[in-house]
Amino acid sequence: MIVESSIRKTREMIGRWRRQGDRVGLVPTMGFYHAGHCALMDKARELADRVVVSLFVNPTQFGPSEDFTVYPRDLDGDCDKARARGVDLLFCPEVDAIYGPEDQTIVEVGPLSQGLCGAGRPGHFRGVTTVVTKLFNILDPDYAVFGEKDFQQLAVVKRLVADLHLPVQIVGHPTVREEDGLAMSSRNVYLSEDERRAALVLYRALLTVQQEAQRAGFEIPAAELREIGRKMIAAEPLCSVEYFTIIEEVSLQERDRVDSGCRVIGAMQVGSRVRLIDNLALMTLS
Amino acid sequence: MIVESSIRKTREMIGRWRRQGDRVGLVPTMGFYHAGHCALMDKARELADRVVVSLFVNPTQFGPSEDFTVYPRDLDGDCDKARARGVDLLFCPEVDAIYGPEDQTIVEVGPLSQGLCGAGRPGHFRGVTTVVTKLFNILDPDYAVFGEKDFQQLAVVKRLVADLHLPVQIVGHPTVREEDGLAMSSRNVYLSEDERRAALVLYRALLTVQQEAQRAGFEIPAAELREIGRKMIAAEPLCSVEYFTIIEEVSLQERDRVDSGCRVIGAMQVGSRVRLIDNLALMTLS
Repeated sequence: MIVESSIRKTREMIGRWRRQGDRVGLVPTMGFYHAGHCALMDKARELADRVVVSLFVNPTQFGPSEDFTVYPRDLDGDCDKARARGVDLLFCPEVDAIYGPEDQTIVEVGPLSQGLCGAGRPGHFRGVTTVVTKLFNILDPDYAVFGEKDFQQLAVVKRLVADLHLPVQIVGHPTVREEDGLAMSSRNVYLSEDERRAALVLYRALLTVQQEAQRAGFEIPAAELREIGRKMIAAEPLCSVEYFTIIEEVSLQERDRVDSGCRVIGAMQVGSRVRLIDNLALMTLS
Repeated sequence: MIVESSIRKTREMIGRWRRQGDRVGLVPTMGFYHAGHCALMDKARELADRVVVSLFVNPTQFGPSEDFTVYPRDLDGDCDKARARGVDLLFCPEVDAIYGPEDQTIVEVGPLSQGLCGAGRPGHFRGVTTVVTKLFNILDPDYAVFGEKDFQQLAVVKRLVADLHLPVQIVGHPTVREEDGLAMSSRNVYLSEDERRAALVLYRALLTVQQEAQRAGFEIPAAELREIGRKMIAAEPLCSVEYFTIIEEVSLQERDRVDSGCRVIGAMQVGSRVRLIDNLALMTLS
């Protein structure tokens, strides 16, 4: 596996691969790999001849009061894990290389970026779509694989690619979970033992809503399902709900009833430092 | 010459050219070709193996009170002119193909888009940078040639390409002028005979400022040069100055004195319907 920080050398290498007809699969990451990241790398391997992983903790997608400086980092461990998945190239540029001194260009997806996590994290998705556009332009992938845990991000990036006619296919991958169901996240390391136990309520709430919807043959108002989930989270003293709702998975619009392509999606605060998100399909897109 | 409106077919054709090692030069246009456009096509021909011209009157770069609907169009004449310049492919997509029904993504270059024409035409450069990003992603050129008449546009697009790491080289081409010096523009057809005569004052003001700066060995305050030009335009009853100033050509920042990379640049209204822009180098970038 090649570990490269230079944009120029990375472009040259990928250019050579592409000229010899190799298809390139990209997994954009912020590092601190867990089994979720490894599953995305495996998926990229399945789709493409060359697997490129970008490792870049992108400052512009963190708010001023968020955890950019303390976001967990472990380059050596990440290299070992990526190498073990058969990754061909780990691209880990410096911040100054991605954002030059005169940088002043932003890429923004409108309405899709504004609700859900976008409401609680203003500017977050602008940071994501700007850096993803830069990475796609540098790395020129045929495929880019994103986890469904960050479901709004996946929807926003799909919209970005369609709108800007970016020549890449976005592939979503199901959320990888701990044995007890907690969605894997680099931020789970922030959790104390008590918080880790409490954190599971989000998945349990999603699962309960999914089961209740199925039990009712989907003939149950979304408002009722929302209440079930919100009450479960509210009952957990260490957790407070940020949002918990039923959406349609392409438009991310809230729905009154459960129909094709509906998901239940939530975000909550655990203790004073950790914010977790998760989601589950209620009815697959027909 | 191939005339194509389909994005898919255009991509396929350019992909074939690129796979056989051809370099692609793009001239993005809004049509109604004059000698200025033809010079850009010749420049692209000089740089690349294949010349692609995009013809797209981009609605998002026109303000609500601007001339989108009446912007001059002449597809047949444009085809003849492009064919005569040896253009390989004229890409003329429909608006709906560039902006899909769910389109909501914008690309924006910050401070560079705000002064000069950006102040008088809010949202104009956002429309330009958004459509240029789309066109670059569809057409994948090695070079893209822009006229220096739209000097702010050229600076903004250079910034866009650097910031987003777009794999294309932006090439500026000197302004082509009518015999009497008026900068060629598709909008010149809007001018009445009297307005056409009056319109020349912008070039004469730029030229006078250039000559005064040279005569003073560049030891003359920019404020004094601005005044000379503004007074000349103000003295022309059919014209009113929108801006007229001395800028540095990369940052587009106003300058107090004439030094390396300085340009004099202006915009004025002629009669009630026509807005013209022009610029000249005062001192080349050292």
